[in-house]
Amino acid sequence: MKLNIKPLADRVLLEPAAAETKTASGLIIPDNAKEKPQKGTVVAVGKGTKDEPMTVKIGDTVLYGKYAGTELKLEGNDYLMMRESDILAII
Amino acid sequence: MKLNIKPLADRVLLEPAAAETKTASGLIIPDNAKEKPQKGTVVAVGKGTKDEPMTVKIGDTVLYGKYAGTELKLEGNDYLMMRESDILAII
Amino acid sequence: MKLNIKPLADRVLLEPAAAETKTASGLIIPDNAKEKPQKGTVVAVGKGTKDEPMTVKIGDTVLYGKYAGTELKLEGNDYLMMRESDILAII
Amino acid sequence: MKLNIKPLADRVLLEPAAAETKTASGLIIPDNAKEKPQKGTVVAVGKGTKDEPMTVKIGDTVLYGKYAGTELKLEGNDYLMMRESDILAII
Amino acid sequence: MKLNIKPLADRVLLEPAAAETKTASGLIIPDNAKEKPQKGTVVAVGKGTKDEPMTVKIGDTVLYGKYAGTELKLEGNDYLMMRESDILAII
Amino acid sequence: MKLNIKPLADRVLLEPAAAETKTASGLIIPDNAKEKPQKGTVVAVGKGTKDEPMTVKIGDTVLYGKYAGTELKLEGNDYLMMRESDILAII
Amino acid sequence: MKLNIKPLADRVLLEPAAAETKTASGLIIPDNAKEKPQKGTVVAVGKGTKDEPMTVKIGDTVLYGKYAGTELKLEGNDYLMMRESDILAII
Repeated sequence: MKLNIKPLADRVLLEPAAAETKTASGLIIPDNAKEKPQKGTVVAVGKGTKDEPMTVKIGDTVLYGKYAGTELKLEGNDYLMMRESDILAII
Repeated sequence: MKLNIKPLADRVLLEPAAAETKTASGLIIPDNAKEKPQKGTVVAVGKGTKDEPMTVKIGDTVLYGKYAGTELKLEGNDYLMMRESDILAII
Repeated sequence: MKLNIKPLADRVLLEPAAAETKTASGLIIPDNAKEKPQKGTVVAVGKGTKDEPMTVKIGDTVLYGKYAGTELKLEGNDYLMMRESDILAII
Repeated sequence: MKLNIKPLADRVLLEPAAAETKTASGLIIPDNAKEKPQKGTVVAVGKGTKDEPMTVKIGDTVLYGKYAGTELKLEGNDYLMMRESDILAII
Repeated sequence: MKLNIKPLADRVLLEPAAAETKTASGLIIPDNAKEKPQKGTVVAVGKGTKDEPMTVKIGDTVLYGKYAGTELKLEGNDYLMMRESDILAII
Repeated sequence: MKLNIKPLADRVLLEPAAAETKTASGLIIPDNAKEKPQKGTVVAVGKGTKDEPMTVKIGDTVLYGKYAGTELKLEGNDYLMMRESDILAII
Repeated sequence: MKLNIKPLADRVLLEPAAAETKTASGLIIPDNAKEKPQKGTVVAVGKGTKDEPMTVKIGDTVLYGKYAGTELKLEGNDYLMMRESDILAII
C-alpha cells in the first residue's frame, strides 16, 4: 500500500507485520501475550541526508529493534516511523 | 494564516490541528481525554543553517512527535515552535 | 538602551519584556502568579563564532524558551544573557 | 549456514556458539548456570559505511562482549545482530 | 596584578571582584548572605587552541556564570581558573 | 606467548601480570585482599583505525586503568581486551 | 626524577607536591585534614596526538584540578597520570 506521505530526511515509514497468533507448536496465543512484531514492510522513504543516502525502498521487508520508531495512526491503520539507522536488516 | 515572525536557524512554527472531539465510532470525547494532536500546519520557517537547508514550507501539513517543540501563545493563538529535525513527515 | 558590555562569541544580552500584570479578561495578577516573560529586546550582541555568524541585532524583539539564559543585574536592571541558539524567533 | 538476510550498514549477524555444558573438570553445568556464550560465527555482513569498511566476513569465528547485539529468531534459530564495532576479535 | 602563571590552552585566570557588603539601600550584608561575585579581572590568559583564539586579555573586567571555574589559592589570594567559553562578556 | 587471535580495529589483548602476594613489608596477602593488577603484557594488537594507528606492540609491558577492558578466557588463561586509548603507558 | 615510562598519546605523569602540614598561621594539620595537593612536577610526557601537540615538558611545575588523573604507584612512589587537558596551568 502506498500512502500520500513524505517522510523527512532519513526517515522510513513501516507497516508492522501482524503479530503471530499461534506458537510454533500450534497453541493459540492470547492477545496480551503476543510479542510486538519486529518485522515490517516499508511504505514510504525519505530522501536521505547529505551524509546518509537511503538503502531501503518501498516494498522491502525489514527487521527492526523492539523499541524502534514512533507509532503513527494514518487513515485508521498503525504505522511505525523510524530512522533508517534503526532498521537492522532487509530480509 | 501568516504571522509576522521570523523563526531562527532551522526552526519551524506550526499551528497544531484541532484535536478530534469524536472517536471513529462517533462517541463524543470529553476534553481531558482528547489526544494531543500530532498534526499541524506550517505558518513560519527559518532560513535553515549552513548544514541544513529547509525542506518544509509555509502551508505544509506535517506530522510531529508527541513531545516535540515549545508551546508559544501569539496574538491569542497557540503555536508550536520546533526544529525541522523534529518533524516526521509532510502529508 | 545600549549598555557598555561586549558579549563573548555567540552570546546575546536581552532586556526581558515586563510581565503582564493583567489577564486577558482584566484580572490583576498577583506578583507570584505572573508568568516569567519570554519576550525581550536585544541590547548587546557578540561577534559570533567561525561557525555561527550572528543573525539578531540590537533593537530586535525576540522570543526565547522559558528557561533560557543566565540572569544578570547590570546598573540596577535585570537582563538575560543567552546564546543566539537559545533564541526562537525575531518578531 | 547462509540466510537470505542483508544486514544494514555496519551490522553483522552472528550465530552464537552453543554454551558449554561441562566445566573444564568434567562437571555437568545445570542449564541456569551456563554462561551466555561470547563466541559466534558470522552468517551475514552489511556493506559497511563510508567511514567504516567491513573487516569480518561470512564464516569468521568472532568474540564479542557479553551484552552486545540484539537477539533475533530467524526460521526457528537464534541469532545476534550487532555492529562490527561490538566485535572484539576474530579467532 | 600579574602572576607568574601560564594557563594552558583556552584557560583564563580571574581575580574575582570583592562581594558587595552593602545592599543598594545601604543595609550591611552579613557574611553568609553575600552573593558570590560574578565579576572579575583577567590576570592571566592561555594561548588559545587551534580552534579558539583568545578574545579576552589581561586587565579586562569580565562577567561569568555563578558556578564557572575552579577556585585556586595562589600566594595567599583567591583566583578562579576557567575556560574562555565560560566568560559571558567583557564590560 | 602468541595467540591465534586478531583483535579488531584499535583493540589490544593483554595478559595481566600476576597480582602481588606479599606486601612491601613481606606480609602474605590473603587472596581476597590482593589488588587487581594494573600491569600487563601485550599479546595481540589490532590494525588500528584510519584515525588511530597503533603505538603498542606485542611484548610491550603496559599500565592500564583499574576498570579498563573486557575479561576473556582463552585456552584456559585470563586475558583483558581493551582499546589502546585505555592503556596509560608503556613501561 | 626521570622514570623509565612512556605515557601514551596526550598523557602526562606527575609527581604530586607534598601536602602542606602547617596552616598559614602555623598550626600543625593532622593527617586526615591535609588537603590533597593540586600542584605537581611533570616526570614523563606522551608524544601528543595528531590534534594535540604537547605543551608541558619534563620538570614543569603544574596546577591541576582536585579530582584529575589516575593514581599510580611506581617503584614505591605515588604518581598521577592525567591527560594534558586536565592540567590547568604551568607555574
